Amino acid sequence: MRDVAIIGAGMIPFGRRDEDTLMDMLAYASLKALDDAGLGDKSVDAVYVGNMGGGMLQRQTAIASSLVDRLNLMPAAAETVENGPASGGSAVKNGLLAVASGYYDYVLVVGGEKMREVTGWRATDFVATMTHPQAEYPYGITLPGMAGMFTRLYMEKYGVTREHLLAISLKNQEMGTLNPYAHVEMALDRGGIFDSPHAIVNNPTSADPLHLYDLCPVSDGAAALILCPLEMAKKLAKPPILIAGFGQATDTQTLQERDDPTDLKAVTLAAQKAFEMAKLKPGDIHVAELHDAFTILEIAESEHVGFFKKGEGGKAAAAGKTRLGGQMPINISGGLKARGHPVGATGVAQVVDIVFQLRHELPKNRQVQKAENGLTVNFGGFGNNVLAFVLRRVQS
Amino acid sequence: MRDVAIIGAGMIPFGRRDEDTLMDMLAYASLKALDDAGLGDKSVDAVYVGNMGGGMLQRQTAIASSLVDRLNLMPAAAETVENGPASGGSAVKNGLLAVASGYYDYVLVVGGEKMREVTGWRATDFVATMTHPQAEYPYGITLPGMAGMFTRLYMEKYGVTREHLLAISLKNQEMGTLNPYAHVEMALDRGGIFDSPHAIVNNPTSADPLHLYDLCPVSDGAAALILCPLEMAKKLAKPPILIAGFGQATDTQTLQERDDPTDLKAVTLAAQKAFEMAKLKPGDIHVAELHDAFTILEIAESEHVGFFKKGEGGKAAAAGKTRLGGQMPINISGGLKARGHPVGATGVAQVVDIVFQLRHELPKNRQVQKAENGLTVNFGGFGNNVLAFVLRRVQS
Repeated sequence: MRDVAIIGAGMIPFGRRDEDTLMDMLAYASLKALDDAGLGDKSVDAVYVGNMGGGMLQRQTAIASSLVDRLNLMPAAAETVENGPASGGSAVKNGLLAVASGYYDYVLVVGGEKMREVTGWRATDFVATMTHPQAEYPYGITLPGMAGMFTRLYMEKYGVTREHLLAISLKNQEMGTLNPYAHVEMALDRGGIFDSPHAIVNNPTSADPLHLYDLCPVSDGAAALILCPLEMAKKLAKPPILIAGFGQATDTQTLQERDDPTDLKAVTLAAQKAFEMAKLKPGDIHVAELHDAFTILEIAESEHVGFFKKGEGGKAAAAGKTRLGGQMPINISGGLKARGHPVGATGVAQVVDIVFQLRHELPKNRQVQKAENGLTVNFGGFGNNVLAFVLRRVQS
Repeated sequence: MRDVAIIGAGMIPFGRRDEDTLMDMLAYASLKALDDAGLGDKSVDAVYVGNMGGGMLQRQTAIASSLVDRLNLMPAAAETVENGPASGGSAVKNGLLAVASGYYDYVLVVGGEKMREVTGWRATDFVATMTHPQAEYPYGITLPGMAGMFTRLYMEKYGVTREHLLAISLKNQEMGTLNPYAHVEMALDRGGIFDSPHAIVNNPTSADPLHLYDLCPVSDGAAALILCPLEMAKKLAKPPILIAGFGQATDTQTLQERDDPTDLKAVTLAAQKAFEMAKLKPGDIHVAELHDAFTILEIAESEHVGFFKKGEGGKAAAAGKTRLGGQMPINISGGLKARGHPVGATGVAQVVDIVFQLRHELPKNRQVQKAENGLTVNFGGFGNNVLAFVLRRVQS
């Protein structure tokens, strides 16, 4: 396998983008990454698009071919990669392996989703199409419903509390206010005599014990990366970021088939594989983007990847250990909770955010000092298909 | 790049499969390929699913994760690859590059589609979602409509006649009657005093100058392959089939943007790349599966890949040169015209059919004698994203 580096990264602001088509968003993010890579006249050999809902939400298929035309990248190869909310991670993976194989040199990976095409229960139903078609979907189970039941079990087994969950909401939504690409622009507050609209006392139940601010918003957005062999990356102006490790694992589609439904085996395994390939340990990571579609997931994942022992993740978050300046900064971008979760974009956006961190190009209020190694976890289904990437700043 | 071989191939009969879900079909084809590979207890490391319409037709996403669960292949990695009618080819490509990279050893590639979920104009409309979302789809252009206009231009420029097109229909539908996996089970006849229901005189206009029997049917079906490094394949019982060459190219999304709409540049380029990688010439190929979603495409592709000069493909077909025993046997399976075209399955099924040919395991009335090298062309959009594979029987 050739070593593969990231030489370009770009993102457009997530949120409501009523004025843009899905194709517009994919094109804008791609152009930012291409520009960031500074390849000049050099084009890319292949394009991988991470997208889940083009057919269902936009009634549009073969969007990768359409994007190549839009960006005038012909005759570059192109296809769409779909893996539910891990579609972005799967696009990065296939770009990585394609360059690692030696077949392609320069690859564009772009993830995007236009989810606000539908709202309310229709958005929830769209996401629920990833559940089991016989054992789950017909019975009306939704992802928030699953997350609620998972949270209850996790609380019972590991003593996670509502305060622990709120610590995630408060941190991520605060960080979102600092991130120009984030969907959520207002910090939560704890309320008081004159409660603000965003006070946590105005936080209605969504899927007990989860409340509104435990859930990520429904967002539009796109993010993009340019990959190439590390050797070629060394000639460029910006420090290349090595994809030092990659791991992926699947688990049973439904939670009830698992011996212990609180045990996210695919997260553990994907992270282990990524660390093994990178020859690093959890303790070597300086900054991580975890898949906090629900606050409980940031806590559970922080334990399953090995940052904290089981049952310690919630306490660590409440103690500020996962904030900027803490022992293990997590979701400094605001995470899915505040940056937003346009499903096909998320896995790519997580990598983009770590690239920004490892290049040390963020403003002081968001930059993890001396960050050399980063981790991303992109969580598909309810933990039935998980991808982890370990990224490393290459010493020049 | 590591050399990658095909060690397992399987297919289920294409056609109307009302009794099966999409997942059933993907699972059945996968099990046939796994069984064919004879890997024993060895499982696969990764799964690539080629599928276009799971979300739109079955309201089901993340089907690759679901398939891994269904087949109990956890923790194997998995994702779906979508590229319109070339989704199957794109799944094979990503399986190929993943094994070539050295990251995975054993990979399952499976393509499938359950298209008969919708019928009539709804099926045509589903396929039309791959057209340009602003410049084509809103104006009601369909794939048969495009093919009709393309045929008219090709007739004018190269002297292709209705007799040439009928030669393709007659050959492919006759071969379909011999293929147990083909959708179309009845041969066409030229009619007479007592016209049969399948007489070509009972062949109504579909999209002028194309008639009903110039179009592939709307089919359900699935096909699967097992890939592994060539070195590992040599230890197995069946002769390994090397993926000796692969090429892919894109072109403008719409026909009207092309300098010469009859020039299928992406077909030429994809085939050239595949031949170059395989170090073979068109004349070295003994059997080919071309993407005859419309009869004109078999003629046009046979010229663009280099089997015949421009304007000679139709005459060659009418002269029987592309029949079994002819100079260049094409679509001995019956092609899309008779095997059927479940869009996500086709690119995989084409490779499966060539594997059967190169292993010399077909009955005499379908086997190309001493076939050593084969070619497949999987045609996405209207030629805007094309994949070609050159397969080679490895001498033992």
